[in-house]
Amino acid sequence: MPRVAPRALHARSALAAESVFSVMSRLAVQYGAVNLGQGFPAGSPPEFLLEALKTQAGAADQYTAPAGLPALREALAADLTTAAAVVRPEQVTVTCGATEAMHALADALYGTGTDGAGDEVLMFEPVFDIYRPQALLSGATPVLVGMTLTPEGWQPDLDGLERLVTPRTRALLVNNPHNPTGHVFTRAELERIVQLARQHDLWIIADEVYDELYFGEAPVPLRELAPERTFTVGSAGKRLEATGWRIGWIVSPAQVASQVTASQVIATQVTGLHQWATFCAPTPLQSAVAAALPIARQTGFYEDLRASYGARMRLLASGLRSLGLTVQQPGGSYFLTALAPGLDPWHLVEHGGLAVIPGSAFYAEGSAPDGLIRLAFCKPASEILRALERLESYLGR
Amino acid sequence: MPRVAPRALHARSALAAESVFSVMSRLAVQYGAVNLGQGFPAGSPPEFLLEALKTQAGAADQYTAPAGLPALREALAADLTTAAAVVRPEQVTVTCGATEAMHALADALYGTGTDGAGDEVLMFEPVFDIYRPQALLSGATPVLVGMTLTPEGWQPDLDGLERLVTPRTRALLVNNPHNPTGHVFTRAELERIVQLARQHDLWIIADEVYDELYFGEAPVPLRELAPERTFTVGSAGKRLEATGWRIGWIVSPAQVASQVTASQVIATQVTGLHQWATFCAPTPLQSAVAAALPIARQTGFYEDLRASYGARMRLLASGLRSLGLTVQQPGGSYFLTALAPGLDPWHLVEHGGLAVIPGSAFYAEGSAPDGLIRLAFCKPASEILRALERLESYLGR
Repeated sequence: MPRVAPRALHARSALAAESVFSVMSRLAVQYGAVNLGQGFPAGSPPEFLLEALKTQAGAADQYTAPAGLPALREALAADLTTAAAVVRPEQVTVTCGATEAMHALADALYGTGTDGAGDEVLMFEPVFDIYRPQALLSGATPVLVGMTLTPEGWQPDLDGLERLVTPRTRALLVNNPHNPTGHVFTRAELERIVQLARQHDLWIIADEVYDELYFGEAPVPLRELAPERTFTVGSAGKRLEATGWRIGWIVSPAQVASQVTASQVIATQVTGLHQWATFCAPTPLQSAVAAALPIARQTGFYEDLRASYGARMRLLASGLRSLGLTVQQPGGSYFLTALAPGLDPWHLVEHGGLAVIPGSAFYAEGSAPDGLIRLAFCKPASEILRALERLESYLGR
Repeated sequence: MPRVAPRALHARSALAAESVFSVMSRLAVQYGAVNLGQGFPAGSPPEFLLEALKTQAGAADQYTAPAGLPALREALAADLTTAAAVVRPEQVTVTCGATEAMHALADALYGTGTDGAGDEVLMFEPVFDIYRPQALLSGATPVLVGMTLTPEGWQPDLDGLERLVTPRTRALLVNNPHNPTGHVFTRAELERIVQLARQHDLWIIADEVYDELYFGEAPVPLRELAPERTFTVGSAGKRLEATGWRIGWIVSPAQVASQVTASQVIATQVTGLHQWATFCAPTPLQSAVAAALPIARQTGFYEDLRASYGARMRLLASGLRSLGLTVQQPGGSYFLTALAPGLDPWHLVEHGGLAVIPGSAFYAEGSAPDGLIRLAFCKPASEILRALERLESYLGR
């Protein structure tokens, strides 16, 4: 039997590198480190979500339509509708996590142009790790816009954003609250972004998976400001402490005046591309999330979540400051960034027993501020205290 | 506020058409038709699967590593290992359904070549609907090889396959048992396919989601014949009557002699591309499937499934024959094809109260045999009898 090694994989496999989050989690296990690296909650999802799953197990286990379980699309439309923006079930596509939502939008909105060159997609740097490879896999070119670290915290460079728009620019990606910085874009910042998108006729992708995780002013949903061009991405995993459930969603642009048909066509096409990636999201989990969303809203679950995360955020931030680090207080998300000049996270995880994410992981073009690290505070207070002790002992050596 | 309609979606949205299965299921509901169209079981998953989910709810709800839950990778390796081919956990990538497995392989194995032209992928026609758009979305060109309808049933045109190989051919896609025809490739047919793949150094993608659903000889896993170049795709949804669970898998090629490292690199790269589409598969469902797989094997669940589907297949086949249709007896899958010359499925669903899939849905280049239809028999016997009554009354008019 011939045993020839087959030819190589396709060239795009070069984009298949293991993410720094997976690597750091693996090292944390290997060295017995406290893990403030990867962003997943330490605890279990709320009882009402687990109850919904147990109650409904056996009732909904076959395919749903690619757009999602009708009950979940309705629950999401109700939950996401605000005084300023109605969301209709027809706008909602349920996906296998927000990651797949972003993937479907990368397919739907950009790629190579008719001349074979890549469309351009604007995104802020430091940049969450999936955005660049997803744009590159679609054939588009990610264009990074700086966020500046000032004594008052992170500030998006909106002048820079304006300068970087070209005739090839198709879309503008805004992650709000922003990972890794925790920055919550102000209404004024969002209005300027919307103005720019309208002026140049760009799509807006609003990755709002941390929409319920904020510590000061609530983030303004971009679909309220630009309903005609905004795709909102959300996540049941982030909202309901179940990152492994893989229930995400896309809200396609709302109808614009008489353009009902056009709006439905957009949502249908986005759904149509999602069907070639995963066909549909997991039915029993869709069903449980549909039941849980109104309970979360009615019982004040998100308020409790914010209070609990806020307390842990302040614990971590003040602890880091007392060790001499400069901390950027986050407005949302479950991450914060800090400056520890000279600190090497790869050395820290092995010799200090603490896993954090190096800031360089979020930079592709610019260079990370010296000693920038990202820490997750979606962990029990006891873990955060242990992390601070380990960092103190490591820095004291 | 400007209300300009934004520019169009990317050109690839032309591939986003709603699948004929979704359309037909919708029409079946609209006209109160018996639905032998879309292939999903009418019943619930087995109790041992639902029990595993209920027992474990709350224990595994956060991200797994992109490659999957270790317990599931181990359960799959044990389940898929045969006397002729060992499968190691390191070869397994867990995906959001077999659809995503096929998507990840389309990303990993083909696309446009360095000269900008598309790689070619060989697949048999009639062809399952996801293969072509997935190849096209990756930038590759699907090349269709005929299956001939003879009085003895469907026969893959292996001479045609050989003629269609070009220097651009990268991969060969074999769906076994085959949807829609139910054809189970014989060992001789598979050996000829493997010989061709070796001669031209092609990857083999073996979509074996119906591996446990056969009515005569068991299909030979292609990884047994060509371990060095075969990617196997499987599905917990198909095996465990839970098509909405979205737990699929890829088994990457096994190590070849001293090429342990190369083999691990391949599985890691496939996993790396899957991570940009969905990051990981749903954790609680991965956990339940890991517990259920050995139970299914030990309790004879698959034997019972085959017996039960076999009986329903024979009921449907003999009923159709008694109505004068020509039926191709399937060797596997939960579909059969039949010839009803002059029958129009779109008219049938509306005026005859029965949904079936028109054969033309599986043809892109060749033309479907006159009156070819696909029927699913993964429905209760009572439904099948009702379907036969309706067809009889429709044909008698």
